[in-house]
Amino acid sequence: MKKIAIFPGDGIGPEIVDAARLVLDAVDQAAGLNLQCTDGLVGGAALDATDDPLPEASLQLAMAADAVILGAVGGPRWDGLPPAKRPEQGLLRLRKNLDLFANLRPAQIFPQLLSASPLRPELVRDVDILVVRELTGDIYFGQPRAVELVDGKRRAYNTMVYDEDEIRRIAHVAFKAAQGRRKQLCSVDKANVLETTRLWREVVTELAAEYPDVHLTHMYVDNAAMQLIRAPSQFDVLLTGNMFGDILSDEASQLTGSIGMLPSASLGEGRGMYEPIHGSAPDIAGQDKANPLATILSVAMMLRHSLGAEQWAQRVEKAVQKVLDDGLRTADIAAAGEAVVGTRAMGQAVVKAL
Amino acid sequence: MKKIAIFPGDGIGPEIVDAARLVLDAVDQAAGLNLQCTDGLVGGAALDATDDPLPEASLQLAMAADAVILGAVGGPRWDGLPPAKRPEQGLLRLRKNLDLFANLRPAQIFPQLLSASPLRPELVRDVDILVVRELTGDIYFGQPRAVELVDGKRRAYNTMVYDEDEIRRIAHVAFKAAQGRRKQLCSVDKANVLETTRLWREVVTELAAEYPDVHLTHMYVDNAAMQLIRAPSQFDVLLTGNMFGDILSDEASQLTGSIGMLPSASLGEGRGMYEPIHGSAPDIAGQDKANPLATILSVAMMLRHSLGAEQWAQRVEKAVQKVLDDGLRTADIAAAGEAVVGTRAMGQAVVKAL
Ligand SMILES: CC(C)[C@H](C(=O)O)[C@@H](O)C(=O)O
Ligand SMILES: CC(C)[C@H](C(=O)O)[C@@H](O)C(=O)O
Repeated sequence: MKKIAIFPGDGIGPEIVDAARLVLDAVDQAAGLNLQCTDGLVGGAALDATDDPLPEASLQLAMAADAVILGAVGGPRWDGLPPAKRPEQGLLRLRKNLDLFANLRPAQIFPQLLSASPLRPELVRDVDILVVRELTGDIYFGQPRAVELVDGKRRAYNTMVYDEDEIRRIAHVAFKAAQGRRKQLCSVDKANVLETTRLWREVVTELAAEYPDVHLTHMYVDNAAMQLIRAPSQFDVLLTGNMFGDILSDEASQLTGSIGMLPSASLGEGRGMYEPIHGSAPDIAGQDKANPLATILSVAMMLRHSLGAEQWAQRVEKAVQKVLDDGLRTADIAAAGEAVVGTRAMGQAVVKAL
Repeated sequence: MKKIAIFPGDGIGPEIVDAARLVLDAVDQAAGLNLQCTDGLVGGAALDATDDPLPEASLQLAMAADAVILGAVGGPRWDGLPPAKRPEQGLLRLRKNLDLFANLRPAQIFPQLLSASPLRPELVRDVDILVVRELTGDIYFGQPRAVELVDGKRRAYNTMVYDEDEIRRIAHVAFKAAQGRRKQLCSVDKANVLETTRLWREVVTELAAEYPDVHLTHMYVDNAAMQLIRAPSQFDVLLTGNMFGDILSDEASQLTGSIGMLPSASLGEGRGMYEPIHGSAPDIAGQDKANPLATILSVAMMLRHSLGAEQWAQRVEKAVQKVLDDGLRTADIAAAGEAVVGTRAMGQAVVKAL
């Protein structure tokens, strides 16, 4: 028996998670996985109910689970709240408390959706990038941090910090991922300016000897932001710290033009958390318009990384390709004139294609 | 009489600066500006000659000047050197010592070069963005910073820091720039995670009352990295800190597909420094292949911002448009099959078009 904690979250979260549940249930029955799924509250939904974006009960639920599925958190309703009371804090505390240090964010072109890319088709046709982003360190969590009054003047600071163990464990993840792919690893830093990323480059370079089959390169973050647009198919695996990865993984995903399609996994030593990379889209919430495929592909990543069911992961991925081949489109990925299906119908179609 | 300090720097620096000199000399004579130009060493060239990327004589030369022209610094020859002995340090120390806190980086489409953009033409046709990047603060210069050994383990950190005065002075520059343009100002931060950028957002918001004609919005840095690709023409002026601006201004410039065309200005209370945004391109150095137009357009920015010669700035900019209209192309901006001119010939053509 495996325990799955499900946090639908805010906005379109509940709908896309419900559609993904259809797929998960179908796989569970067909494969005899014997999953025990329990829902919990996080983000704005948790704030409304308990005044805390990650109530103790939710944290316990996640800690006791083998894997976590998350919809999306946040929305304008909670934007005015103080920092500790923001939906995002629920997400950041989940990552930190579960020690989910490795964020895997694939940015992959779906050939059926090539025309959705803002880039010229010849530049993106072959794009298949995996961003491996460190997720529990860096300036996100570094101490000290504060807004202070110094001689009556406001002053604020944060600390970017990494130690060699933190760098090493995420670099291992990236090297291994590259071994299973095209064996190209590009590590991103700003080693010409920042000590923290100079250590980053040093430690990553040291590990290269353990992975002689992987070709390691280094790139400054400003150049990486350019190269992702200029010639994105040069990249296989991109390894980044938490802050640079936040920026570059969003940039990379936008290259595909279909961020409603892109899943993510956040892995630690034990359990993993799986979520679409898109946000909670409050403007279309509750209207059966949202694209559930990123969440469904996140379920595939869960089958692969947390449930040891690689074959079923591939079957879900193939089912998604099939519904795209069949011309099914939610509004976000429909070209002008194409017929549109709803969130639930898309989930059902994937189940059928399984 | 106005004093101009010229630092050709490394790689293609000397060639592009020589071509720009042709234009500057022509304007000087025609407009009777009475310029006194003096060359100095910075970057790798200075390291080779004096073992210091910014020798005291160069700093004095820059301090005594009304404006500084810089070619480009850096190259693989100096990559192995320790941090304090890197060409980039010359640049960073110039910025800091001259208090050049406002970096203006226009990312503009040249209609003649539309097909060079990696983006679909309909998305970039109207792109005309000015990135206003803070240049003397943030994690670039924040203290403390170090690589340390803690219990035998390496650990490194940097400090992101801003006080309200630093934020206010760069925000004023951005608001004023927006007033002279389309009156849209988008300030970039990561206020949902970083205290430093929460203060940033707070202070920028306070200033908005002084500029009622400017429409101020705020955007998280990860979203900005996406929106720049998804719909770049939504932006007029983008206001950023030093680190985020390093990344986003490079991304924005790449949208145009012609970074060999883009100038920049770094302004303080007094003098300004002007340089192309591209690098030193050591692979084509000394071959009369480099595109001097970004440096020539930087001269135009100098005429505008440091020499009070707006009309001559516009004449230089029009001359550049004219040579493009006439079909002159250096290798970097030539489409397949187009005839190519060299660095010096391009400079001469601009002089003729003046
Ligand atoms: C919501 C926010 C805190 C989060 C981050 O910055 O990590 C998001 O942008 C992401 O990338 O998952
Ligand atoms: C060379 C480097 C130190 C510099 C920076 O990071 O500011 C460069 O990337 C730039 O943007 O001018």
